[in-house]
Formats: sequence, structure tokens, C-alpha cells
Amino acid sequence: MLIFHNPNHHLHAGRQEMFRGRLVPCHETPARLDHVLDELRRRPLGPLREPGAVDLDLVRCIHSPHYLDFLAQAWSDWVALDPANSEVDILPSVWPGHGLRRDVAPTNFSARVGLYSFDAGTPLGAGTWEAALAGAACAIDAARAVAAGAGVAMALTRPPGHHAGADFFGGYCFLNNSALAAQALRDAGADRVAVVDVDYHHGNGTQSIFYERDDVFTASIHGDPTTEYPFYLGYADELGRGRGEGCNLNLPLPSGTGFASWQQALLRALAEVRRHGAEALVVSLGVDTFEGDPISRFTLRSGDFVQIGRMLASAGLPTVFVMEGGYAVAEVGVNVVNVLDGFLT
Amino acid sequence: MLIFHNPNHHLHAGRQEMFRGRLVPCHETPARLDHVLDELRRRPLGPLREPGAVDLDLVRCIHSPHYLDFLAQAWSDWVALDPANSEVDILPSVWPGHGLRRDVAPTNFSARVGLYSFDAGTPLGAGTWEAALAGAACAIDAARAVAAGAGVAMALTRPPGHHAGADFFGGYCFLNNSALAAQALRDAGADRVAVVDVDYHHGNGTQSIFYERDDVFTASIHGDPTTEYPFYLGYADELGRGRGEGCNLNLPLPSGTGFASWQQALLRALAEVRRHGAEALVVSLGVDTFEGDPISRFTLRSGDFVQIGRMLASAGLPTVFVMEGGYAVAEVGVNVVNVLDGFLT
Repeated sequence: MLIFHNPNHHLHAGRQEMFRGRLVPCHETPARLDHVLDELRRRPLGPLREPGAVDLDLVRCIHSPHYLDFLAQAWSDWVALDPANSEVDILPSVWPGHGLRRDVAPTNFSARVGLYSFDAGTPLGAGTWEAALAGAACAIDAARAVAAGAGVAMALTRPPGHHAGADFFGGYCFLNNSALAAQALRDAGADRVAVVDVDYHHGNGTQSIFYERDDVFTASIHGDPTTEYPFYLGYADELGRGRGEGCNLNLPLPSGTGFASWQQALLRALAEVRRHGAEALVVSLGVDTFEGDPISRFTLRSGDFVQIGRMLASAGLPTVFVMEGGYAVAEVGVNVVNVLDGFLT
Repeated sequence: MLIFHNPNHHLHAGRQEMFRGRLVPCHETPARLDHVLDELRRRPLGPLREPGAVDLDLVRCIHSPHYLDFLAQAWSDWVALDPANSEVDILPSVWPGHGLRRDVAPTNFSARVGLYSFDAGTPLGAGTWEAALAGAACAIDAARAVAAGAGVAMALTRPPGHHAGADFFGGYCFLNNSALAAQALRDAGADRVAVVDVDYHHGNGTQSIFYERDDVFTASIHGDPTTEYPFYLGYADELGRGRGEGCNLNLPLPSGTGFASWQQALLRALAEVRRHGAEALVVSLGVDTFEGDPISRFTLRSGDFVQIGRMLASAGLPTVFVMEGGYAVAEVGVNVVNVLDGFLT
């Protein structure tokens, strides 16, 4: 399996996030990816490659230009406000909530941050843009390799992407790598593409991006948003809109769900992928469904991830894996490589 | 002048607010009101009274029942999550931003906080609800005293209110005291009421509450929201909607505005109050237009506030003053009392 890994991921290393009224250390750390790379050295599955230059035209197909301009300039704007800001990551403190307007163009920096965010848990730092761009390049290159006949490839990157929308960041995500991979597959000739999101958290960004499209079917298996992040999307009644009606499937599952129930949901998602006639598959691969994950509440075991890989392979489609969440840092490597190993065997 | 002061205001004392990626001490402190009370002891303007029990039916006319239930229960829910939470104020960390739903009912506490907030600068603490309710009682009692013939009265309270909407808190505000005073005047028989907001910051909550009503005319003179909080409302093109069209006036002014320009805006607002046939006036009295205010950028001097009081008196209407912002703590007392003194003389 061809694996494109993000050589710049260390440049994104959030220092603090808001959680229950406090600033606490981030769960989304560089060590997460290092553990996967370490495990891949122990159990090699194929060549590890660095991506080429990112295709910004493709990125602009998924994300709005004003949002990309904001991300590209945010850190220099922030430090220009006050050199001491270099010691502090950017976090939103005000946003256009209920009764407020989004159709305005405030110049105030904090107001601009708030226009593009939905949580205060996603610190934007000095190297975030560079790391996110290289991650986007991994996703696009992996998709293009698959489109060119590789069969399967992986974008091994962080920060993750599935919570990022066309014009917003959140949930540790800035650019939606899975959406970029899906778009790259479409552009390379697949008439229909499916994104299956197996991360513990609903892929709200991916759903939003494709919600009115019928050429990309999106499915997500995740903790019930009534109690689990991102709370405000991911319910079963969200089916798509307009041309996209019927092209989104949410399978929320309760806290404590184990593999027996979880795999039934994956079987259902894969049946829908077939029914929609997808010619290629993108897997948003989070492994925070693991029983030891510190911020999730499913009870999958490491061995179950091998079976997930086998089930995904059974779809028989050209497949791009894109790394999303998973925060039990020591085990994240074993669990990710188990999925890939299961897919290949 | 009859002054209803909030005997419970000290119960609300936010510890920290998010500002530019950091948790910093709150600008909105109990000392603010104490300085006004101290100045009123030096320059007595009339009897100081405590309010009676709050009229919750009236509060429910302005704020939605589910929001009030949230505020009433928030602290006990918060501490029930973890007793250690009693050491930390409630601040939002996730909210239904762009692409997310508000028509859902997450049970997760953080998700519920986010449904009702638009900034992370408004800590909700153990005594916030009790303090806010007593403040609402001050506003209602002051309005009823005026309706009964007192001519003028003041609700001397904090936390302030003008950023709070029917179902959201923010900008240090939880219950909209000025809106409650306006509603109390309406209920007592005034066919048309005007709210004139002279705080440095746009009164987005008050505008939102009355935006589709023609019985309460709202005007606000404030720092241009392009650069000043609350950023996402307060622009000159917001004129009201439906029946309320033409019943909202925003007069944003640039940074550095001095009294010469500022008083022209007040003259214009008062001319519109007359034109709308208001039978009673509520003044959202912030004194953060003062040149020494730490978070504002107009340059009014203490003597100017006497003139503001005179101009407001010239409207010749039964008038309820409601305390809003003003953060140059030592001077806030002098400036508030100057307005009241100017009104009376």
C-alpha cells in the first residue's frame, strides 16, 4: 500500500484548548502520527512517500477562497497585533451566534476568527497552515495514485480534516482531507465516489461540503451527537438536500457500543455505498472507536480493527484511506496499521 | 430620582474571560457598581431602594422559557458534572456555527451552553442567576415607578443586559434589563416606548428582541462594529423587519469620536424617538464612551455626561435609566451620576 505521509505535521502542535471552562493541553498531538509511523516501521505495508506540491486549485474547489485567505494570513495577522501573541495560539472568543449576522466583514481579528470557527478547541498556530497544506497534498496525491491504478493508498496526516467545512475550522480540523480526496477522485474520472467516515465523531465538515451533491455519497458511523461532539450535526434525519437528497447517511450509535453492533452499521453503510454505484471509496479513518480512547465511548478492541479493514476491502473498490482521529496515543499506531493490514489480507 | 439598586449584584463576579487566546480577569466587576453607589452617597439624587420580587411572567415575555430554564439550572448542572467545577466559571467551548443545527436538543452540558451563547467572555458563575434576576426586578420596578408617575427612575444593576437576547447570553449580559423595562412600560399602558442605547457597544440583544415590533423603537449609538464588539450586528442598514421595519436606528461612529460628533448622533436619535411618538423612554446607560475606558475608543470627558443627561431630559418623556457598561472603574461612578444629575437639573 502506497502511503503518503505529511512531512510537515509537526509544524502544527496546538498548545491549549478550551474544555469545560479551562485551558487544557491538546489531545491532538504530533505523537499520534509518530506512533503510526513507528508501527509501520515494525510492520511495513508498502512504500512511504512524501507528497508533491499541493494543488491549490483543487483545494479551492472544496474550501471558499476567503476562508483559505484567512487561514494563510491568520498567524502573521495575529503576531502583527502584538509580538507577544507568538507565545499563544489563536482561539476564538466571539462568534456570530443566534441573532447575529454572518454577511458582514468585520476587520477586527477576533471577529474574523469567530466567523470561521465553531469551537474553542482547535488552536491555530504558527505552523498550522503549512502542516494543513501538506496534509491536503497527501490526500490529493493518494487519491490520484488510486485513480491511476494503485488500488489503495493512504494519506497519513494530521491535523485531521473531517470536521472542517467549506469555510470553517473546528474539531482539530482545518482543511478537509477526505473531501479533497473525494474531489480528486471525481476529477480523475470516477462518476460517483463514496466517503465512509468511521471516526468516533460525526464528520460534520464532510457532510456539509457534499450535502447538496449527488456525485459524492457520504456515510458516517459515530457516537450519538445528543451526547457526543460535534453535538449539532450527525443525526439520522439528515439525508442530504436538493440534488443531494438521499446521498447522506448518518448512523449514530449510543455510548458503550461494541464491535458486534458497530460492524452492523458498517455493513449497512457499505450496502448503501454499493447501492449508490460508487466507483471509488474514501475512508475517513479515525480509530477513536477504540475502548481505550480518552475522549470517546465505544469499546472496539485492537483486533476488531483488522476486521474493519477486511470489511472495507470487501467493497471491492479503489480505496483512499485518510487519517482522522484517535487519541489513545500509544495504541493509535497499532489500530491504524491493523485496519490497513486487514484491508490488504 | 428613585434608584433601584441590585442588592445581589456581588453574587455575580466572573473570574476569567477568554480574550485573544488567553483567560484574563473580567472587566465587568462588582467594583463598578460600588463606585456608582459611593458617588451617590457623595452626591445624593434621591432615595435608594431595593427591588421587590421579580415578575417572572414579564421576564418570560422577553426571554424564551428554555433559555430561562437553562440559566436557572446551569450552575447546579455544572457542579453535578464534577464537584471541582465549582472552582471554575462556565464558559462555552463549542457552539452551533456555520453549517450546524440549532434545532436539536443535545443533552451534553457543553453543547447546551453553546446553544445559548455568542462569546467566551461572559462567565456564568454560582450567583449569576440570582444576581441577574434581582437586576431584572430593578428594571421592572423602576419602569413601574415611572409608569405610576415618578417621572424618572433608575435601575442600578449589574451584570448589564443589552447584549442578551431572547435566548442568548454574551457581552457580560444574561437578562436584558432594558428590554424588560420597555416591556413593563408597555404593559403599564404606554402605546409606544423607545429604547436609546448610549453604551459604547451596540445593544445587539435589545435590537434583536424588538426587531419585528413597531411598539418599541430602538436606537443605538456605538462604536462601528466593523472594528468594535459585538462585530456581527449594529450596522446602519439594520432598520427592523416586518411590522418593525423602520423601528430600529443604528448610529455607528468611528474610533476616536469625541463629544461634538457624538452629541449630533444623540440629537438624531432623540428626533427619531419623537417622530415615532414614544410615550416613554428607556436609556441603556453605558458610560464606556468615556475617554479613559480600557476597552472602548471614544473620547467623551466626565463633564460631557452632564450634558448627555440634559439632552435626554429635553425629550420630555417619562424615563427609565438602566445601567449597562463602563469599565474605567474609578470614574464610572462620577460619569453615571453626572448623567443623572444633568437629567435632573
